[in-house]
Amino acid sequence: MIILGLDPGLGTTGWGVIRAEGNRLSHLGNGHLKTDAKEALPRRLSHLDAMVAAIMADHDPDAVAVEEVFVNSNPQSTLKLGQARGVVICAAARGGMDVGEYAARLVKKSVVGVGNAEKPQVHAMIKRLLPGVRIAGADAADALAVAICHAHHLASAQLRP
Amino acid sequence: MIILGLDPGLGTTGWGVIRAEGNRLSHLGNGHLKTDAKEALPRRLSHLDAMVAAIMADHDPDAVAVEEVFVNSNPQSTLKLGQARGVVICAAARGGMDVGEYAARLVKKSVVGVGNAEKPQVHAMIKRLLPGVRIAGADAADALAVAICHAHHLASAQLRP
Repeated sequence: MIILGLDPGLGTTGWGVIRAEGNRLSHLGNGHLKTDAKEALPRRLSHLDAMVAAIMADHDPDAVAVEEVFVNSNPQSTLKLGQARGVVICAAARGGMDVGEYAARLVKKSVVGVGNAEKPQVHAMIKRLLPGVRIAGADAADALAVAICHAHHLASAQLRP
Repeated sequence: MIILGLDPGLGTTGWGVIRAEGNRLSHLGNGHLKTDAKEALPRRLSHLDAMVAAIMADHDPDAVAVEEVFVNSNPQSTLKLGQARGVVICAAARGGMDVGEYAARLVKKSVVGVGNAEKPQVHAMIKRLLPGVRIAGADAADALAVAICHAHHLASAQLRP
């Protein structure tokens, strides 16, 4: 099963694709989708939409997951993030795909074992779980982490009677 | 020239289409796009995306406009609105279309003549400017108002040397 994790943002959206076979995970790809801050919002959103659609077409995932959002106290930032997040989720869901959402705490707990893990611990654990991975950056790491969380969640759901 | 106005929301998105020939406006259609609150967010967003794409295909507008958003003090509401707004703007912009954004004050000023006009004044003026229009509801009225604002803006831009 191929799982795409996404960490949406208007300027930078992280993505990570893994393969999950039972408890065995492997890395297929990760990176950042960037939009140009000098462009108008509609252009940036449609560019983001096209880039997520391209990732979907390239990797043909069986499942998609995103992190539940940390709502910023700055309403303008929240609106900006919301707009990008809507476009990213919609681009993934367009073909009828379910998109899993996981709280940040749950993602950390699933990857590291504790919900309040620090970023370096999460990165180190991603490298252990996905041998040979080269992580493109912080947002790509978050995307890989939510993909791993989704894999664990699906695997444990299958074990339930 | 055919202009589509949109008032985005996750539960209800208003839309209104007008024809503008010089200073002369006429009404082509208006209504509400609704998503089911019982569905998961990704499903609601992709449904909204498909409905906006259908309006674009039906009316083939030459221009699209949305109101600049009133940022709510409730971050969760702002995030929800942002997600819907991103999807709506992206669905309109996907074919390379520019999407105009206008502040609420400017929309009211353009339709009624004053920036602090009340809703009933705006509705009454929409009915005068678009003879025979039957307004589907409050969100459709807001969508028609922003379409009228965009028409006025384009007409005055053409008059400039």
